[in-house]
Amino acid sequence: MAVIDDLTGELSRLPGIGRKTALRLTYYLLKRPPEEIQRLARVLEAVAEQVRPCSECGNLSEHDPCAFCANPRRDPSAICVVEEAADIGAIERTGQYHGRYHVLGGRLSPLEGINPEDLNIAALLRRLGNGSVVREVIVATNPSVEGEATALYLQKLIGPLGVRVTRLARGLPVGGDLEYADGVTIAEALAGRREL
Amino acid sequence: MAVIDDLTGELSRLPGIGRKTALRLTYYLLKRPPEEIQRLARVLEAVAEQVRPCSECGNLSEHDPCAFCANPRRDPSAICVVEEAADIGAIERTGQYHGRYHVLGGRLSPLEGINPEDLNIAALLRRLGNGSVVREVIVATNPSVEGEATALYLQKLIGPLGVRVTRLARGLPVGGDLEYADGVTIAEALAGRREL
Repeated sequence: MAVIDDLTGELSRLPGIGRKTALRLTYYLLKRPPEEIQRLARVLEAVAEQVRPCSECGNLSEHDPCAFCANPRRDPSAICVVEEAADIGAIERTGQYHGRYHVLGGRLSPLEGINPEDLNIAALLRRLGNGSVVREVIVATNPSVEGEATALYLQKLIGPLGVRVTRLARGLPVGGDLEYADGVTIAEALAGRREL
Repeated sequence: MAVIDDLTGELSRLPGIGRKTALRLTYYLLKRPPEEIQRLARVLEAVAEQVRPCSECGNLSEHDPCAFCANPRRDPSAICVVEEAADIGAIERTGQYHGRYHVLGGRLSPLEGINPEDLNIAALLRRLGNGSVVREVIVATNPSVEGEATALYLQKLIGPLGVRVTRLARGLPVGGDLEYADGVTIAEALAGRREL
């Protein structure tokens, strides 16, 4: 049973997958044709071999520069700064943003020992340096305490360079319910109210 | 992004893993060292290559015969019949059973077009044939309508061979609550009541 146990063990290391789910997945896979298991194995191999951070923006990609940095049709005058590469997908799905990205690889968190030098900030400053065409940096860190602190830190760093620094609006989520919204969100929504 | 999308696609084919979970797992894996992703890929390859049904009992194993069939210390006079290889683990964890196993690979379900010839029944009959030392077949199919029907079918088939056919007791699960037990389970528990 060794390789079966190994598979269950490896699967149960994934986040949100406990021992029971790992067992269920293992026996599901065991019932599939071997080619199907091999396809999953091969795509994992390909990811492990080929995917690296983009040297320009830090996005995870099998190409360097990544598809966003290499695309001449993406507006080079705007950079949207996100915590993780996964956040890019969330913004792309809106179809409303056509600029470039920059992935920090986390957020400032002194409690967890994550300081500015642990994030991909030097590369961001390089992109804003001499001859830069960037006019706006949109900070899209998460609306958490750490995300806020990171946004403020970037604002202090980048503002003096003459680049406009903005951040995503905060307020009530569309489809949400005022009755169940937390006080901080309502306060932000009030503070950011706009003319109808 | 092709291989990243491929990985998300493959992961979202797994049961209970939707597109969002697949994305989360993908980005989790992308943040791990490549060696860790490769370890998962290799164990999947090993499973795809090495794990096959045991020709004796149908259990999934990298050895043929499997560890249970090959173990001379497992009582050869008892065979416990289960629907899936995964069920063996559940019985083994009790530590109360020391006989052999037989995996049907499913249960009878005319509605889904699963008939006796689709299950691993011929091999079971071979094990009970000439010169067999088997004295008891414990039918441990699931306590569902299909599992019951499968148990009754096996009883009719095997009973005439002079082998004792038993099935797991049904009743209140230990730690369960009478108030929340369903009527059928309580009826079975009543019918199967024992002297204190």
